[in-house]
Amino acid sequence: MEAIPYLALVSALAGLGLAAFYFGAVKKESSGNARMTELMEEIALGARAFLKQEYTYVAAFVAVMAVLIAVLVVPLGAVTYIFGAVLSALAGYVGMTVATMANARTTEAARSGGPAKALPLAFRGGAVMGFSVAGLALAGLAIVYIVFIGIGESDDGFELLTAFGLGASSIALFSRVGGGIYTKAADVGADLVGKVEAGIPEDDPRNPATIADNVGDNVGDVAGMGADLFESYGGSIVAPMALIAFTAFSIDANETTANLLGNDFILPLLLFPFGVAFIGMIASIIGSFLVKTGDSTDIHDLSKALHRGTNVAMGITIAGVLGLGAWLFTTDNGFDSFWGLPVSVIGGLLVGFAIGKVAEIWTSDQFGPVKGIASASETGPATTILKGISGGMLSVGASVVLIGIGIIVAMYGGHQAFPDAAQELGGIYGIAVAAVGMLATTGVVVSVDAYGPIADNAGGIAEMAELDPGVRDVTDALDSLGNTTAAVAKGFAVGSAALTALALFKTFEVALVQAAPIDSQFIADGGLNLNVGDVDVFIGLFLGAMLPFVFAALTIDAVGRAANEMIEEVRRQFREIPGLREGKEGVKPDSATCVAISTKASLKEMIIPGALAVVVPLVIGFIDVDTLGGFLAGALVTGFCLAIFMSNAGGAWDNAKKYIEQGNHGGKGSDPHKAAVVGDTVGDPFKDTSGPAMNILLKVMTIVSLVFASAFV
Amino acid sequence: MEAIPYLALVSALAGLGLAAFYFGAVKKESSGNARMTELMEEIALGARAFLKQEYTYVAAFVAVMAVLIAVLVVPLGAVTYIFGAVLSALAGYVGMTVATMANARTTEAARSGGPAKALPLAFRGGAVMGFSVAGLALAGLAIVYIVFIGIGESDDGFELLTAFGLGASSIALFSRVGGGIYTKAADVGADLVGKVEAGIPEDDPRNPATIADNVGDNVGDVAGMGADLFESYGGSIVAPMALIAFTAFSIDANETTANLLGNDFILPLLLFPFGVAFIGMIASIIGSFLVKTGDSTDIHDLSKALHRGTNVAMGITIAGVLGLGAWLFTTDNGFDSFWGLPVSVIGGLLVGFAIGKVAEIWTSDQFGPVKGIASASETGPATTILKGISGGMLSVGASVVLIGIGIIVAMYGGHQAFPDAAQELGGIYGIAVAAVGMLATTGVVVSVDAYGPIADNAGGIAEMAELDPGVRDVTDALDSLGNTTAAVAKGFAVGSAALTALALFKTFEVALVQAAPIDSQFIADGGLNLNVGDVDVFIGLFLGAMLPFVFAALTIDAVGRAANEMIEEVRRQFREIPGLREGKEGVKPDSATCVAISTKASLKEMIIPGALAVVVPLVIGFIDVDTLGGFLAGALVTGFCLAIFMSNAGGAWDNAKKYIEQGNHGGKGSDPHKAAVVGDTVGDPFKDTSGPAMNILLKVMTIVSLVFASAFV
Repeated sequence: MEAIPYLALVSALAGLGLAAFYFGAVKKESSGNARMTELMEEIALGARAFLKQEYTYVAAFVAVMAVLIAVLVVPLGAVTYIFGAVLSALAGYVGMTVATMANARTTEAARSGGPAKALPLAFRGGAVMGFSVAGLALAGLAIVYIVFIGIGESDDGFELLTAFGLGASSIALFSRVGGGIYTKAADVGADLVGKVEAGIPEDDPRNPATIADNVGDNVGDVAGMGADLFESYGGSIVAPMALIAFTAFSIDANETTANLLGNDFILPLLLFPFGVAFIGMIASIIGSFLVKTGDSTDIHDLSKALHRGTNVAMGITIAGVLGLGAWLFTTDNGFDSFWGLPVSVIGGLLVGFAIGKVAEIWTSDQFGPVKGIASASETGPATTILKGISGGMLSVGASVVLIGIGIIVAMYGGHQAFPDAAQELGGIYGIAVAAVGMLATTGVVVSVDAYGPIADNAGGIAEMAELDPGVRDVTDALDSLGNTTAAVAKGFAVGSAALTALALFKTFEVALVQAAPIDSQFIADGGLNLNVGDVDVFIGLFLGAMLPFVFAALTIDAVGRAANEMIEEVRRQFREIPGLREGKEGVKPDSATCVAISTKASLKEMIIPGALAVVVPLVIGFIDVDTLGGFLAGALVTGFCLAIFMSNAGGAWDNAKKYIEQGNHGGKGSDPHKAAVVGDTVGDPFKDTSGPAMNILLKVMTIVSLVFASAFV
Repeated sequence: MEAIPYLALVSALAGLGLAAFYFGAVKKESSGNARMTELMEEIALGARAFLKQEYTYVAAFVAVMAVLIAVLVVPLGAVTYIFGAVLSALAGYVGMTVATMANARTTEAARSGGPAKALPLAFRGGAVMGFSVAGLALAGLAIVYIVFIGIGESDDGFELLTAFGLGASSIALFSRVGGGIYTKAADVGADLVGKVEAGIPEDDPRNPATIADNVGDNVGDVAGMGADLFESYGGSIVAPMALIAFTAFSIDANETTANLLGNDFILPLLLFPFGVAFIGMIASIIGSFLVKTGDSTDIHDLSKALHRGTNVAMGITIAGVLGLGAWLFTTDNGFDSFWGLPVSVIGGLLVGFAIGKVAEIWTSDQFGPVKGIASASETGPATTILKGISGGMLSVGASVVLIGIGIIVAMYGGHQAFPDAAQELGGIYGIAVAAVGMLATTGVVVSVDAYGPIADNAGGIAEMAELDPGVRDVTDALDSLGNTTAAVAKGFAVGSAALTALALFKTFEVALVQAAPIDSQFIADGGLNLNVGDVDVFIGLFLGAMLPFVFAALTIDAVGRAANEMIEEVRRQFREIPGLREGKEGVKPDSATCVAISTKASLKEMIIPGALAVVVPLVIGFIDVDTLGGFLAGALVTGFCLAIFMSNAGGAWDNAKKYIEQGNHGGKGSDPHKAAVVGDTVGDPFKDTSGPAMNILLKVMTIVSLVFASAFV
């Protein structure tokens, strides 16, 4: 059993090896003609420049936090905090590097070999990212565990694990917010002036913002998403381990539980998350080899190829987790059943899948909601917007019900596994490992997700390099496929965010009580009292419900301001560069200035919303921990609802526009199409800035509270 | 002291007398030429027809609920439930009747005497509604108290008061939802085909939906708002009385509190809300006499005239409440201070005012947010929408912080007044009476609020009767004034909703524990346990946060579907009635069919969202009361945030459009104006359907839970 962390480390290294292999495979492909290669390099240059500057800003923030952790919590925590931050940044950087190499190569593959050649290439580009994310996160956690904690020692080295998680969260938050603002400022700027004012198509080489738009796809959808999933994956593994560690080891631990949980009982619980991650990693590696296409160019066959990898990986994980349960959770070790916790994990996996399906139903043009938005476009942009908003809000209902079911199933599993006297802990542990289940197959799920922006960029390059329209048709088909598969990945991300945050929240409760000195005011006041009817908790709940609204407002406004700077610049170029608008031979836009504007604006804009997530819980926590408890709970439930609403409404508008562009309701250029473009533009910051950043916001706030719990009391 | 309920009754009757006096004053004015009178009658006919049918539907619902209450709770409760419902419906009906008389008369006054004559008339029309609402609610409550409860008797007749409140809530919910759907379906339908497609101005007589649009103003903004405020006002008075009654009288009362609270202590607390309402009513009557204009037509002078009434009424209330406190809360009766609870009341009043100011800042064209939306319209409808959404969301931040301050101040007041052993009860009682403070001046506040739709309708009649454009300018000035004053009223409504719901929530907790038989499973499980970290409470919190989103989605979609039916009909008429579009002499649209369509569609659409509010808490309550507690708390905080967001975003879009129409950013017909019209259309169901209905939703769900508390355990 003691081998499990080492197994996890080995599987993580195998994942990283696979990423390196795919990296080589992508690199050896041709990046096409000179123009395509030049475009690719321009995009890569812009993306690198942004990430470098972003990481400079974030490094300052990380330094401040590291000092705070060293002083207020525990000195070694600063080390693991920085370790988590660096690995997370590295995962984003690697993913972005390969994505900016794979784009032109995918265009060239589409040109020379059609979808059967382009799809595997784009997928391999995505897989470099997918396995870097999962590999680095799992390797980092295993190293922290092996080096600082050892096997089953009763110390509080587990604070170092949560600090690692906070490091990952810090990067994820800023990457999501900064990258999200960048990508949407460029996108909205390019669209509003290009498509709407100048009447030129998307990705037209005359549009000065096109390069910035493509850079944005890489820094937002690839690097931002990579850091996000690194954080989710790492956080999901940390949560159950921290829960058990804080409950069982700390000196002030609840006597009953501590007595009850012998080492035989604790160790399997501590190692189970690593075991699940190990199985998921192996399963992902196997799954990734199954993503290949025949000669078919049919969209459904291509779609099957992508889904096959994910489905097989999940199947293997389910079987493996049952086996793992049988090995770890024996009655000898004090468990009531071996299958309880595997049920939690599998339940989590299935619910994550189901939430992804909900997202798909509400955002794919195969189903009613998107078709409804397209129909509503017939009566103009106002009805397009209203239909999208109501659809997004309805999808909240379905998603929350699924999360509720997931929580109940996961809790049931925990209850079945744990002895009677530790039922409550068992329920929460079940919830925590359900999130691990959702994210176990991160390797392959992120590969499929990261494939989307690569295909999108490939289309952009085809357009800018003025290739045959047939090439664009191929990349468009791949891209639209990406939109649906990405929905599943988002389902896992958001579902796991809710469960992980809930588990971290419970851990925070435990940690607070244990960290408090016996003679503190906190203990004198009766410890933590989170009765929702108490006014201090209720005010916290209110403030927590409000914060996601303010956060969404700030990020939407940030996109608006940054987009405006871009719009002014594009207009200026069309006005001042003679022959640009007409597309005169040899006249080129000044793309570099647009890239610089987006970079500067988005970095400036990411500071306030990013800082909010860290400062607000700290301020509240130092005033009143009961209020902080209410605050975290309020933010969690409302933020989850807003995140689902914004992501699904945004995705639906995007696909409604694409559905119309396929020739429905008058097709491109018709009035319904114009209305749908309005919807798409409104949806851009919803689905790519505010919505995804919200997931991280919730976890950052919870994990900040958890790390600083001992400082509050 | 025993005279207070009688004083309240007398003041309520005085308010009703004033309403009758104003009714006569409005009625004796001229309704203008034959065409104007004819239009007025058409509108009145449509409004009456709708209300009649709406009440038929609602009567069926009320009957079912009455039976449930009689069987599951207490037989007499069915009587007071029906009494509350009937009075609430009556208040809406009276308000609507006078509003549909005052509209043409205001047009005529504007034509013959300008704003100095039109403003007082429109205000008097509104005042009939304002004093009917406050008078009927206060009279009803006083009668229930005097007849069924007597003075200070220790019985559980207080359940009859909460049943009265539930009756009012039931009507309010359906009136807000049904009326809100009606008014916006007609408005959106009229705008989309009229202004956008046919290119004819608002309220043009050629547009077949214009009459329906004007009917909508009366059934939604007048009758719906009247029932809403009846419910808020009544509910705010019921909450503190029920809180004290359930805590002090019931047999299973918390021993400590029961022993501590002698009759000397309890009676002033029971009667204080009536006393505050009495003072507010007298102050409102005085304030209403101060709303008069000189000869000035300057908008700021007119605005001052309206504000003077409200401000004086508030000043009188503040002074009166301090006096009332000195009389009731003596140390002889066991109070620690006489000024504590007056501070709670005054705090509530000031916070309500401040929330109104926040609404004004975010929705008036004098301030940044609306100007920002107008600027954003330069770059098209998408940026208009995004700017409105982010502004609305930011206003949530300010409003929640104010509510938090209000809660803290109100709690502080309660703590100061109550003896040490009953501090918690004192805090909650303080919060409950703060809501009474916010609504004490309902009489004059609603008068000012109801004045708005009358001025709006007057403008519509001026347009349809093809009067001189100068008349329309006068009514437009009055109307835009109404938008800002209405913001203040909305601030009171939404602020009091949060506080009342919180107080009712606490009462629900107390009622549950007291209603449970000693040998019930509920008591065996340890009674109510609302720790937010418990999974059952947390799932409730999640479901509660989700419900307002689903409710908003359902109501928005309902407006969309009803508007679509209207659009089809208007298009049909323009297509099939020869000469209509060209405005040929003698060709009239078939307005009656449009009215019938709106009526039918909105009644059909109100059923599901309305039923949701009652059915969901009942279902959850019968499954698990802890989950229900979490559910109510989650719905309260998230619903409040969504309500503020939707109301303020909608109001801001509306006024941004009007701001552009004043000649800014290119004025009417420019591209920014078209973009602003899109914003306004999106905002219509936000601010007039989903947003205001949300307030009631929260209270209905809490009060349903409270009334049925004894049935759950």
